[in-house]
Amino acid sequence: MAVARKIKASLTKSSMIRRMFEEGIILKKKHGADKVYDFSLGNPNIEPPEEFKKELINILEEIIPLKHGYTPNAGLVETREAIADKINKVQGMKLSADNVIMSCGAAGALNVIFKSLLDPGDEVILPVPYFVEYPFYIDNYRGIVKFVKTNEDFSLNIESIEEAINENTKVVLINTPNNPTGKVYCEKNIADLAGLLNRRSSELFKSIYLVADEPYNEIVYDNLVDPGILKSYKNAISACSYSKTLSLPGERIGYIAFNPETDHGADLQNAFVMCTRILGYVHAPVLMQRVIARLQGVKINVSVYQKKRDLLCDGLAKAGYEFQKPEGAFYLFVKSPIADDVEYAKILLKKNILVVPGNSFGGPGYFRIAFCVDDATIINSLPGFAEAIKECR
Amino acid sequence: MAVARKIKASLTKSSMIRRMFEEGIILKKKHGADKVYDFSLGNPNIEPPEEFKKELINILEEIIPLKHGYTPNAGLVETREAIADKINKVQGMKLSADNVIMSCGAAGALNVIFKSLLDPGDEVILPVPYFVEYPFYIDNYRGIVKFVKTNEDFSLNIESIEEAINENTKVVLINTPNNPTGKVYCEKNIADLAGLLNRRSSELFKSIYLVADEPYNEIVYDNLVDPGILKSYKNAISACSYSKTLSLPGERIGYIAFNPETDHGADLQNAFVMCTRILGYVHAPVLMQRVIARLQGVKINVSVYQKKRDLLCDGLAKAGYEFQKPEGAFYLFVKSPIADDVEYAKILLKKNILVVPGNSFGGPGYFRIAFCVDDATIINSLPGFAEAIKECR
Repeated sequence: MAVARKIKASLTKSSMIRRMFEEGIILKKKHGADKVYDFSLGNPNIEPPEEFKKELINILEEIIPLKHGYTPNAGLVETREAIADKINKVQGMKLSADNVIMSCGAAGALNVIFKSLLDPGDEVILPVPYFVEYPFYIDNYRGIVKFVKTNEDFSLNIESIEEAINENTKVVLINTPNNPTGKVYCEKNIADLAGLLNRRSSELFKSIYLVADEPYNEIVYDNLVDPGILKSYKNAISACSYSKTLSLPGERIGYIAFNPETDHGADLQNAFVMCTRILGYVHAPVLMQRVIARLQGVKINVSVYQKKRDLLCDGLAKAGYEFQKPEGAFYLFVKSPIADDVEYAKILLKKNILVVPGNSFGGPGYFRIAFCVDDATIINSLPGFAEAIKECR
Repeated sequence: MAVARKIKASLTKSSMIRRMFEEGIILKKKHGADKVYDFSLGNPNIEPPEEFKKELINILEEIIPLKHGYTPNAGLVETREAIADKINKVQGMKLSADNVIMSCGAAGALNVIFKSLLDPGDEVILPVPYFVEYPFYIDNYRGIVKFVKTNEDFSLNIESIEEAINENTKVVLINTPNNPTGKVYCEKNIADLAGLLNRRSSELFKSIYLVADEPYNEIVYDNLVDPGILKSYKNAISACSYSKTLSLPGERIGYIAFNPETDHGADLQNAFVMCTRILGYVHAPVLMQRVIARLQGVKINVSVYQKKRDLLCDGLAKAGYEFQKPEGAFYLFVKSPIADDVEYAKILLKKNILVVPGNSFGGPGYFRIAFCVDDATIINSLPGFAEAIKECR
């Protein structure tokens, strides 16, 4: 055997999202890119705000010694301070730079968090549907995933989380605003979860961590405010990134932030720093750290995504599709008109429409549309969506 | 317990390099930065070549759709092609873009390689002295490190590698030009190793991989040419970066390249791509991928480091220190005048000189000097080095 057995096994069942992506390339070659409606990938189509380029060029022109040199493993102090200040302002908290560790995107942040926290066999509770990569991240550190159901409207089902908690529970992992559902957990839902975790932590004489993946935290619609999780729970850890809020997914810049009131805070901080180092990240890319320090409070124009959401939701509703209207992020999780969502994705594929079956997210019977695409893609896809549902009736 | 048991245990014996770094900060505050001679970190003090800034600004000014968007997990095809072409030119090989996977520096590359290759219990043979992070990278994937000695001149000791090989051997990990010794393994030394690995692979009916960490591959002195490893052995994998050759250590850009003749090449490529993804790197930072595509053949002025090496070696030799003159990289591994290298590092510390005890690299009885510092630091440190050795006689 060349590669590790576990990797070999995973290779054989390659990601459905990736397969859709490859189907898309073939279709685009055949029919032309404008005739294929690719909703498979969450690659934002909005350019970063003007300020990003401006500050980046400023930094390149300024005299800064070792501008491209190593930073501390945790990241530059000025960047971590700027992020702490922003969180304090928004959430009314008292984080310092010590509570922020820069990361290679939220995916890097989650890997560092799980490497830091999980002993082999520790359990991570994960509400379904979930972002496809989470089980890999947890398995990387020999954690065990315990899936729990969510409510009809995709809010957290506190009872099912309570049932799943036992002496092996180390982490509850949530993602808000959510991929694939677009759900934003409201303050009460988070507070109920925090109440449960406080109670069960003390009953079990252990710290159960609430880890939230929050890369879409500033992409919320209809004047909704994402309450965030940090202030609601002592042992809360946020994995965040600028991939979506500044449209920089390729630059791999994000951070870990944790509640300063956490149990064993110094250990946590040191573990995050060390795991950033030994996982080979070393630290987050320095040029991006420098620019992010200057861009707190800047974000892309969210109304552009809101318009896309409305275009899509109106069109699909008219065609007879059922779904919960997304409150944030740029995903729509639609009920499949037939029970078999993989089959339905194939029907849509015949209309040159690429979606990802809900199956991939632990949510069979649904499919995901990533609507971070041109308006034209949405508009021109609607007849195909309408034909497909008609054919199934 | 808050953090994972293994992480907690590692935290208590924190890295000696990091401790030296912290001692340095205290000393610098006390005596002023110019009165402290900090040789503890390999953070290059040479600025990147002019072309780097020029091309980076060009890219920022050009119209490139989704300039900061996601790339394929393997990286941009144009970047991987440019790197393959460069390797082909230098080593006379036939790599394609498929044989190159972009990474977050060589540290990221090594983590992806080990995650891809190692089953729990697989053994990795590692010549001493070695770069301090390797055992962590191997342990991350439950590999077992088997240390082997090197020759007096720090070249590879083929016999000791042969003795260490058994049915559990999966990888031989080398680092050339070497950190901490500055050794560049010559063509014959690599060929002898390749001969051994070919023979033992076929005797054991398995592929033993030769993984080389080569971030210093273009930093060699006295008109020496680093032969590289790829062409010498079918199952050779190179982990490389631009941290040192372009002085961009903070930007986290590097790559994995493998010999196209390798056993199970498609599996290897797919595993590297998948492990880049599931380890949370997702892919290497995109702006750096774009600029690297345009900078093949560009490197920092190596003669600047050669001058530093000569300044340092001449001064230390005059003071009576013993060492092998580095052939590449920017490290000098010096025999400690007393057996206890940690003790000797403390003596140097009293002269405001920061070095790292050889102990940290599995080479007790030595200490490492990272000479990627200002000439003034080298020149002004020499009296302190001379006094310290005198006091020990």
